[in-house]
Amino acid sequence: MGRVYNFSAGPAVLPEDVLRQAATDMLDYQGCGMSVMEMSHRSKEFGRIIEEAEADLRSLAGIPDTYKVLFLQGGASSQFAAVPLNLMKPKADGATGRADYIITGSWGKKAWKEAQLYGDAHVAASTEQEGYTRVPKQDELSLSPDADYVYICENETIYGVKFPELPDTGSVPLVADVSSCFLSEPFDIEKYGVMYGGVQKNIGPAGTVIAIIREDLIRDDVVPGCPTMLKWKTQADANSLYNTPPTWGIYICGLVFKWIIAQGGLSELQTRNRRKAALLYDYLDQSSLFKATVAKEDRSIMNVPFVTGDADLDAKFVSQAKEAGIVNIKGHRSVGGMRASIYNAMPEEGVRALISFMEKFERENA
Amino acid sequence: MGRVYNFSAGPAVLPEDVLRQAATDMLDYQGCGMSVMEMSHRSKEFGRIIEEAEADLRSLAGIPDTYKVLFLQGGASSQFAAVPLNLMKPKADGATGRADYIITGSWGKKAWKEAQLYGDAHVAASTEQEGYTRVPKQDELSLSPDADYVYICENETIYGVKFPELPDTGSVPLVADVSSCFLSEPFDIEKYGVMYGGVQKNIGPAGTVIAIIREDLIRDDVVPGCPTMLKWKTQADANSLYNTPPTWGIYICGLVFKWIIAQGGLSELQTRNRRKAALLYDYLDQSSLFKATVAKEDRSIMNVPFVTGDADLDAKFVSQAKEAGIVNIKGHRSVGGMRASIYNAMPEEGVRALISFMEKFERENA
Repeated sequence: MGRVYNFSAGPAVLPEDVLRQAATDMLDYQGCGMSVMEMSHRSKEFGRIIEEAEADLRSLAGIPDTYKVLFLQGGASSQFAAVPLNLMKPKADGATGRADYIITGSWGKKAWKEAQLYGDAHVAASTEQEGYTRVPKQDELSLSPDADYVYICENETIYGVKFPELPDTGSVPLVADVSSCFLSEPFDIEKYGVMYGGVQKNIGPAGTVIAIIREDLIRDDVVPGCPTMLKWKTQADANSLYNTPPTWGIYICGLVFKWIIAQGGLSELQTRNRRKAALLYDYLDQSSLFKATVAKEDRSIMNVPFVTGDADLDAKFVSQAKEAGIVNIKGHRSVGGMRASIYNAMPEEGVRALISFMEKFERENA
Repeated sequence: MGRVYNFSAGPAVLPEDVLRQAATDMLDYQGCGMSVMEMSHRSKEFGRIIEEAEADLRSLAGIPDTYKVLFLQGGASSQFAAVPLNLMKPKADGATGRADYIITGSWGKKAWKEAQLYGDAHVAASTEQEGYTRVPKQDELSLSPDADYVYICENETIYGVKFPELPDTGSVPLVADVSSCFLSEPFDIEKYGVMYGGVQKNIGPAGTVIAIIREDLIRDDVVPGCPTMLKWKTQADANSLYNTPPTWGIYICGLVFKWIIAQGGLSELQTRNRRKAALLYDYLDQSSLFKATVAKEDRSIMNVPFVTGDADLDAKFVSQAKEAGIVNIKGHRSVGGMRASIYNAMPEEGVRALISFMEKFERENA
C-alpha cells in the first residue's frame, strides 16, 4: 500500500519531506558517522540541532528573549502537575495558591483535577453540561483578580472546540495547553504567560513537550515537594539539557520547523488550514447525512468531529473509509462518531479525498 | 565519512541492523501507509508494536507475570522522584517513610538527594570520599530492616563502577537504576523489587524509560502530592497507555529486543561484553601510559574510564582519536580523562580499533 490519508488526532501525519530526510540521515547524520539517536546530547552535533530548533521556532513564531523555550519530556499530562507546582503561590497565612480553570473539554478537566492536588483550583466556567460543544463567553467567566493564573486548553482535541479569541485575564497570566493547535497559525506569545503542548499532533513524534514560558514565571519557590524534573527552572537554567533530553524528538521538531519556514511560515499555514477546514465544514453544513457537532464560531480548524446520528452507520463509514485509504477517522472513544484531524501536514488533497468519499457514502446511504 | 566507532556513554551506539530497519520502515511501516511516528498510540499497529516489545523483553530476560513492565517518559531522573513517591510509606505516627541508599557515584547521589524531598533517605554507605572507585562490601552497609526499600545505581556510568553482586537486603525490596547495564547480561529479576533504566545506553533512543516492578509494590497509597504521571499505578493499570507514550522509542526498543534475540540472547551478549571488556582492561593493566581507575573486582563491563594522569595528554588523545574515527571517548566533565562505553551494540572490532590506536598513541608519547 502507498501512503494513506491519516486523520489521526495524534500522534499524527508528518510532512513526507521530513520523513524522507529522517530516513536519509538515519545511519550517518550530515557526515558525522552516526544516527541522531546515537549522539551524545552534549556533542557539538546535537548542540547545533537543539540550538537551531529553538532559533527556528523563535523566528517563525516571533518569540522574544523575555520568554524561555523548553524542550521537555513526560507529555502534556506531566505539565498538568507542573503548571500548579510552578505557579501556585502559597499565601503568607498558610493558604494554598489559587488558579482559575476554564474547562471546555476533557483535557482541561484533567488538568483542573490534577491542580487540586496542589492548591485551590477553581472552575471559572465549564461547558461540560452542554457536551463541550462551545467555548464560554467572557461574561460567563468567574475570574478572580488574585488568581495565580488562568488556565485553558486552547483547542480541545476530542470535541473539536477552539477559543475563537483568548479570554481577557487582565494582569493574571494565561496558561494554555496548545497541543492540538500548536503552530497552526500565527499567535502573539505576549498574550500568554505559559504556552505548552505535546508535539505529537502538529510538530513531531510523541514524547516531546515544548513549553514557552515568560521568564518571570520561572521561579525557585515552587510548591514544596515539586519533583526536580517538573520544576521549570531546572531545565530553564540548563537550556533543556539538565538530563538527557528526547533527542530524536527534538531533531524531528527541528526538521518540521524548517519545513514550516519553507512553506511560507505560520501565515501561509493559517491560510491553508482555514481553507481545508472551510471545505470540510461547508460540506458538513449542507449534508443531509453528516452533521458537525460544534457551535460555528467555536469550531477548531484542526479537529473536525462529525456524526450521522446512527452508531451503526458511523461504524460502517469508518470501516469503508479505511478501505479507501482514509484512516484514523473514528471519533474518540468517549464521544463516538467521527473526527477528522487536519493538522498542518495534512494536504488539501487529503481533505478533498475525504469529502469525495463522504459524498459517495451519503449517496449510497441516503 | 563512513560510520565511526562511537564510545558515547549515552545516547549511544545502536545496532546497524536496527537503524537500517528504521530507515526502511520510515514512510510506510509494514504496508500500513504511515511512519511509526504518525501512528495513533491506540491503533492496532502500535498495539502490536508495544505488545511484542513487552513480550520479547519478558522472554529474553525471563520476567514472570508477577512483575509489571512499564514504558515511561521523563528519563531516569524522573524516577529519582517516582521511587520514593511510590515506595515511601508514611508511618501511623505521622513519621515519613524511610529508605536506605547505597551511593557509589553521581547518579545514586542525585537519587538520594531527590528522595529527601519525600522522606527519610538514609545513606547506607557511600564511596564518595574514595572518588567512587569501588563498591562497598556487604559488611560496610548500614541497612535498616524496616526500610521501605534499599536503593542502588547498579552500574555507575560516570565512574565505571558496577556491583559485582547485589547487596543482600533481606526482605526489604531492592530498587536498582540499571540505565547503563540494562540487558548487558542475564539477571534474576526476582532479586529486585524494582529495576528501571533510561533506554538510551543499551536499548534505544533517549526519552523512554523501562521499569520492571514487582506487582505488590505498585500501590494506590502513594506519598500525598504525587503527580498522576509519576504514580506507577497510573501506567500499570493502563498498560503504559494512560497518555500518549513515546511511541518511536518503544518501537526502536522493540527492534533492539529482536536484535538481541537474534544474537543469541543475554548469555551470548554477556560473553561478548565480558570479552570486549577483558581486552580493554588487560591492555590498560599492562600499559605504562594509560591507567584504569576502578578497583578490579568492581569494574563495569560497560563503561571503562581511564587516564594518562596528564590532562594535556588526555586532551591530545581525545582529539587524535576523533580524527581516527574513534569518537565520544572523553571522560565525563566531572571526572576528566577518558571513558570508553562499550555497550551491547559496540562490536569487538571497535574495541580492537581503540586498543590499536591506544598502543600507537602510547608508542608515540612514551
